Amino acid sequence: MDPDALAKAFVEHYYTTFDGNRAGLANLYQEGSMLTFEGQKIQGSQNIVAKLTSLPFQQCQHSITTVDCQPSGVNGGMLVFVSGNLQLAGEQHALKFSQVRDHGIFKIKPIKTKMFHLIPTPQGSYYVLNDVFRLNYA
Amino acid sequence: MDPDALAKAFVEHYYTTFDGNRAGLANLYQEGSMLTFEGQKIQGSQNIVAKLTSLPFQQCQHSITTVDCQPSGVNGGMLVFVSGNLQLAGEQHALKFSQVRDHGIFKIKPIKTKMFHLIPTPQGSYYVLNDVFRLNYA
Repeated sequence: MDPDALAKAFVEHYYTTFDGNRAGLANLYQEGSMLTFEGQKIQGSQNIVAKLTSLPFQQCQHSITTVDCQPSGVNGGMLVFVSGNLQLAGEQHALKFSQVRDHGIFKIKPIKTKMFHLIPTPQGSYYVLNDVFRLNYA
Repeated sequence: MDPDALAKAFVEHYYTTFDGNRAGLANLYQEGSMLTFEGQKIQGSQNIVAKLTSLPFQQCQHSITTVDCQPSGVNGGMLVFVSGNLQLAGEQHALKFSQVRDHGIFKIKPIKTKMFHLIPTPQGSYYVLNDVFRLNYA
């Protein structure tokens, strides 16, 4: 599988898991993994998943706009750069986090950007060594 | 210097050079460097700077909103994740690329996101191995 297709497959798997079974993301991190979430640094699979499962929304849906991929210089490693939107369930959250252009009126829509650094495992899959998440409010 | 301060210093140096002397960016890339610019992959210092200097605007100003930094797993390497805005000189470009909220009317404002993978050089500085640029239109 070529790197771009592999990166897209990983991103789809990650967000399907995030939106459907967030605790299942633990398998994608290791002890040396680091997440920077809106500027907060969190180290290790257990702490990262504790953070992701404690976010103040239970239902959400990610839509991906772009996926860029480059070899990272680590043997077999890949840098994956993702942009997209995050839609939360419930009107209150939708107003806060989503935007539509509707009859000429703009509401606030954040753009979510994410960077993964993926490292191959001996088992032939990948884990996330580096993970940076930012919501970019327009 | 701690990694976060170093990352911020690098980003400031990069954008000061970009906005003032774009050809001078050649010193920050090497032959193995890769730039992905809005989905287009470009390899090597010379090709990267040719792309950056041929962008259809001569005057611009970057403003940085966030800088996130993590060790990359490569010896001494750092991943740097930047978000900010790009303001171009001239009204025509400003309308296309910039947004202000002005008297209750929203115009289009892109958010620029960028990822650098910095690798130490034997001379004690850093070069850019990986570079991904995306304009995120809200």
